Amino acid sequence: MAEKLKIGLLGLGTVGSGVPLILEEHKEKISQITGMDIEISKALVRNEERMAYHAGRFNFELVDDFDEILNDDEIQIVVELIGKIEPAKSYISKALENGKHVVTANKDLLAQYGSKLVSLAQGNHVDLYFEGSVAGGIPILRTIANSLAADSIQKVYGIVNGTTNYMLTQMISESKSYDDALKEAQELGFAESDPTNDVDGIDAAYKMVILSQFAFGMNITVDQVEIKGIRDISVDDVKMAQNLGYEIKLIGSSELCDDSISVEVSPMFIPKTHPLATVRNESNAVYINSQGVGNSMYYGPGAGAKPTATSVVSDIITIAKNIKMGTVGHRFNAFKFQTKITKDNSVFSKYYFSVELPDVYGQMLQLAKIFTESGVSFEQIVQHKSEKENARIIIITHSASKCQIKRVVYELSNTDGFKVLSQYKVFGE
Amino acid sequence: MAEKLKIGLLGLGTVGSGVPLILEEHKEKISQITGMDIEISKALVRNEERMAYHAGRFNFELVDDFDEILNDDEIQIVVELIGKIEPAKSYISKALENGKHVVTANKDLLAQYGSKLVSLAQGNHVDLYFEGSVAGGIPILRTIANSLAADSIQKVYGIVNGTTNYMLTQMISESKSYDDALKEAQELGFAESDPTNDVDGIDAAYKMVILSQFAFGMNITVDQVEIKGIRDISVDDVKMAQNLGYEIKLIGSSELCDDSISVEVSPMFIPKTHPLATVRNESNAVYINSQGVGNSMYYGPGAGAKPTATSVVSDIITIAKNIKMGTVGHRFNAFKFQTKITKDNSVFSKYYFSVELPDVYGQMLQLAKIFTESGVSFEQIVQHKSEKENARIIIITHSASKCQIKRVVYELSNTDGFKVLSQYKVFGE
Repeated sequence: MAEKLKIGLLGLGTVGSGVPLILEEHKEKISQITGMDIEISKALVRNEERMAYHAGRFNFELVDDFDEILNDDEIQIVVELIGKIEPAKSYISKALENGKHVVTANKDLLAQYGSKLVSLAQGNHVDLYFEGSVAGGIPILRTIANSLAADSIQKVYGIVNGTTNYMLTQMISESKSYDDALKEAQELGFAESDPTNDVDGIDAAYKMVILSQFAFGMNITVDQVEIKGIRDISVDDVKMAQNLGYEIKLIGSSELCDDSISVEVSPMFIPKTHPLATVRNESNAVYINSQGVGNSMYYGPGAGAKPTATSVVSDIITIAKNIKMGTVGHRFNAFKFQTKITKDNSVFSKYYFSVELPDVYGQMLQLAKIFTESGVSFEQIVQHKSEKENARIIIITHSASKCQIKRVVYELSNTDGFKVLSQYKVFGE
Repeated sequence: MAEKLKIGLLGLGTVGSGVPLILEEHKEKISQITGMDIEISKALVRNEERMAYHAGRFNFELVDDFDEILNDDEIQIVVELIGKIEPAKSYISKALENGKHVVTANKDLLAQYGSKLVSLAQGNHVDLYFEGSVAGGIPILRTIANSLAADSIQKVYGIVNGTTNYMLTQMISESKSYDDALKEAQELGFAESDPTNDVDGIDAAYKMVILSQFAFGMNITVDQVEIKGIRDISVDDVKMAQNLGYEIKLIGSSELCDDSISVEVSPMFIPKTHPLATVRNESNAVYINSQGVGNSMYYGPGAGAKPTATSVVSDIITIAKNIKMGTVGHRFNAFKFQTKITKDNSVFSKYYFSVELPDVYGQMLQLAKIFTESGVSFEQIVQHKSEKENARIIIITHSASKCQIKRVVYELSNTDGFKVLSQYKVFGE
């Protein structure tokens, strides 16, 4: 009979309920790979009501006190799927301190306290894995940690928030307004009743913090990420992007410049022929540019019970193998580098501008002057037929620094009658 | 000072020359991850001429006798990058028998003798890794082996031959003929002077044999793969695909049906909105459908010195870690299952037909009768204006079994005046 490996599960929500199912479904394969029978022995549920709801649904014990898991010496792995900061943070810390390995998919927690928890795990010679925290079913952290070990990553572009990608896809292909798209995403259960974290790019920023740690070995904080969400994207912008051969996507980017990185979340124009442009609805993808491999992309479901639970179980299997081979206590990502943020004058991109200006003599010259004096040149200009007394000019710039673009925006905003309707980054290699 | 890990390199061709470069470039990172200084100590070159050519280019010893590597006890890893069957097979076998770990990117060898070599490695408690053998820079084998361990793969669709994908892209976007596209691929160095292995789908079949082993744990042979290359694709087919909203790609497919698999290489119509449709030129991609994760895709360069050398070095790093942790001798892919091939009546797909038939009364009825009597129904029909006395009918069928399609083709070919101009699979989920 194979050795038994017992797990304590924290949380039986959507993903939590998926874990026992996946373990059961792939029992034979998992035991073949790890040489162990992995089973959940106890699960923590929030209160009596949930306890009553789950009673009889699973063949493991339900407990409402974390200590029953913490002090159970037979439990070697704690799987945290409660989410948010507390009590998840305390539970994980105590489990690690008590010599238990931990698997979690908690991006909020990892983005804010990841480096502390990683150190705590190392100090206690136990494993901490969290593949499910970024891009649900896509094994992106493992891929970066293992397969790109012999490579130097230069850029990471991610569509890492399924809700906003779903909304943008609907705005593009079904010509829906932002509000209608949001309502639909909420009805389908993608967006929460308070959609702030998704639409304002905060969720994506958490994921970029974790991705940056793996890609560049640097520990940045969320407030070092420049964040712009999708609230202000108009149907007009979407149409204009289409006409110019682009799709608007909410992109998290992390780029290396010499020995520093710049991390940003913002809507971006992606050329239709680019692989990122075909990432539709709630799908996620991470596009990587690296010295050795060149361009690669990893595409899959960004969330959902089954994909995320599958990532969680693959972490459990990794730990099971480590236990079997006596190799626990190594960091998920061994790569470390001094954290440095690139200055705005060294961060370059192409940009899209939509500018409203008075339709009178000399205004176009004025506009051109503002861009030129900031050293920003035009790749493409489209002037629309005037509506009433105002003209609308669409500009796609050549690559310019963030400093230069900020100067342009400042000057435009301080010129009488000029109004910057929108301004987005444009993907260009 | 860090421990030294010495490598014997076989072959200093395009990929072979890349390996020392990658090792040198990422020296610091590699030593941080593995705790070892990895260096090439000897390289085998073919003859005196090559020896003279490489003299002084590298800081390791050049040898022309394999025994100098085989009998060097300081060399722990042999990296084989000669290609083809012999002498690669003998060298690898001897190295494994002599207790040396082996890294190779030799798809021909692995597709034909993979299971023997894997057993030999296991029997000698050494490692055998070959990430570079499939889809160059894409870490697809590792991903399947590790991250999808907790999942059940149902289907694998791969664009795994860069040469043919380059040619098809040129035929589609530049309206080039097959011959012009081939000539260009040869001039660019993608296609060899004898392009048989690429254009007839044999190279792709080798890769599907290896992918099937990882995805389904089954050891199939190349002659169990049904292979159809791209030689017969006409500019007409390419245009018709475009008009109907598809791109033609050479797809290697491996599908599970209950406990058996069917493996095939053939041109396939891919909907333009599908991620596989944006895989252009020499890029590769592997699209996986699995129970847990759902649909995922792994995209990147399919060949080239740097991407493949990067995969080779990532294998070296894996072995270095295994040596450090004392965990060598485990199979790259631990998943095993009894090999079974699905019967043709259980393999389903949609199909595209282009049929020429006499433009006279009653022929369309005759055509419809042939499909209907085989139980194949139509999803889409386009009749073209007649040229001279013949009409051309384009059909896309609903999903039908391979048996049914074979019957349709047989009946059409045996009907006076009917001619099947082309017939391809159509991707549909």
